[in-house]
Amino acid sequence: MIDALIRRIDALKNPTVVGLDPTLEMIPGYLKEEMFAKYGKTPEAVAEMFLAFNTAIMDAVKDIVPAVKPQIAFYERFGIAGLAAYEKTAALAKEKGFIVIGDIKRGDIGSTAAAYAAHIGGTEIEGETFDLWHEDFITVNPYLGVDGIKPFVDACNAADKGIFVLVKTSNPSSGELQDKLVDGRPVYLRVADLVSEWGKDSMGELGYSRVCAVVGATHPEEGERAREALPHTFFLVPGYGAQGGKAEDIRRFFDKDGRGCIVNSSRGIIAAYRKSEKYGEKDFAAAARDAAIAMQKDLLG
Amino acid sequence: MIDALIRRIDALKNPTVVGLDPTLEMIPGYLKEEMFAKYGKTPEAVAEMFLAFNTAIMDAVKDIVPAVKPQIAFYERFGIAGLAAYEKTAALAKEKGFIVIGDIKRGDIGSTAAAYAAHIGGTEIEGETFDLWHEDFITVNPYLGVDGIKPFVDACNAADKGIFVLVKTSNPSSGELQDKLVDGRPVYLRVADLVSEWGKDSMGELGYSRVCAVVGATHPEEGERAREALPHTFFLVPGYGAQGGKAEDIRRFFDKDGRGCIVNSSRGIIAAYRKSEKYGEKDFAAAARDAAIAMQKDLLG
Repeated sequence: MIDALIRRIDALKNPTVVGLDPTLEMIPGYLKEEMFAKYGKTPEAVAEMFLAFNTAIMDAVKDIVPAVKPQIAFYERFGIAGLAAYEKTAALAKEKGFIVIGDIKRGDIGSTAAAYAAHIGGTEIEGETFDLWHEDFITVNPYLGVDGIKPFVDACNAADKGIFVLVKTSNPSSGELQDKLVDGRPVYLRVADLVSEWGKDSMGELGYSRVCAVVGATHPEEGERAREALPHTFFLVPGYGAQGGKAEDIRRFFDKDGRGCIVNSSRGIIAAYRKSEKYGEKDFAAAARDAAIAMQKDLLG
Repeated sequence: MIDALIRRIDALKNPTVVGLDPTLEMIPGYLKEEMFAKYGKTPEAVAEMFLAFNTAIMDAVKDIVPAVKPQIAFYERFGIAGLAAYEKTAALAKEKGFIVIGDIKRGDIGSTAAAYAAHIGGTEIEGETFDLWHEDFITVNPYLGVDGIKPFVDACNAADKGIFVLVKTSNPSSGELQDKLVDGRPVYLRVADLVSEWGKDSMGELGYSRVCAVVGATHPEEGERAREALPHTFFLVPGYGAQGGKAEDIRRFFDKDGRGCIVNSSRGIIAAYRKSEKYGEKDFAAAARDAAIAMQKDLLG
């Protein structure tokens, strides 16, 4: 799957992933009214809005963007109905040809991580395997060390899927723990060393491992150091746009062939219609396409 | 809610939480057959098994155990149907008088953590607040630092709920990251310092903060050091029993009044019927009760 992701990025000449992180605030008024009228002011109504919103955006960018990254928290906030919209979004995304990165940041002790690994490895019931989540990659949290990660790595290898391990996150306080020095080396580079070790037996054909890393665009120096430490690790780069990350900084995270990263934008694309007077509410998907094209140009420089 | 938890433990003289972490393997054969016959070999069938299994166990221990802790991964493994069983388990647990600790270990950047905080803070739709997850406490991951934690703390304070922040986990490789020394102080104690800081304005009436910590029973020395660092922090202690943690070790984590901890057992209680020939399959709930009573005696010494 890491090879499929890289090839899809190459084919579209676009290292962009669209973050499908809907909020009630960003849903166009007419869509809100339609669903509240049909389903009442309920989580089910919100789930239907999210699904309609995501579907229109995916259709608007599917020929130019290789991957989508729904952030499960924005669906989990609306309970089971919300999570059903997450699952349907992922299934639809696959149908439309996207690589699906489930941003779930799960992490736990070994036996529990093995349960979470169903996200990419599938779930067996009486000899039959169900793919219940439709994700190609997921994000995972390294705080518990290798036995919380190994079940995910095993699932990656068995099902040819991938994981992105949090190394250096994009948020302002990421340094509170991640930048602390251990024998002169910051925690995030210690985690980078672990990621390298965890991924060394999971290499794809194009020089990158199925065990990938999350490295935020908002901390470019740390990102560059992570790249030096991880020459064979593919990066998911959040923090571009709304969070402040800039294209010229991110360019330093790519390898000499211009590969090695996929850059996420969520609000900057899916809520683009709210940023300019030239768009009406009904133009939200067209605005997302325009924003995705602008991002591609910005990234490729 | 931290006061309610402590009072409930005091009233029952039992600092035990039962981990409701069902697997297909531990479901009694007759229950499996019944649900597979009704719903086919599907996730829906498994969800119904889990719900019937959890309900019987909860009914068997509700007069002696103050709290339950469903681990969401074991439900998420079975997709939306599984998660619906998690949500129903939590709702039933509340009805039966348990304090509900949702073991979800979520953690993300600020805006995303705010979405996850719906687990305890509720979800607002057009001015109405929905409690969609029925949890009183949740577990959270500190790897992203304060801006990933603050939305949870705010939700705790607004809704009088609680969080357990991972400090020192019970798994064998927890030390890979958590024991690394930063200026001579291990990462887990650095996290303990942060937990203390994050929780200082969230104190309950009984001397403990709503911002609590996870400290594994399997690392007793580290647990004792965490207790020294965190005199006003309530501990959720996993790792007792099946994972190897012992009562005499855990006793050192309690305060001088015998308060300050709740100790989890999952498989050791809910799958107790499989450990002794004196139980048949249909005795699974009675076996869980016996195991819970034995654990209480063991812990109180």
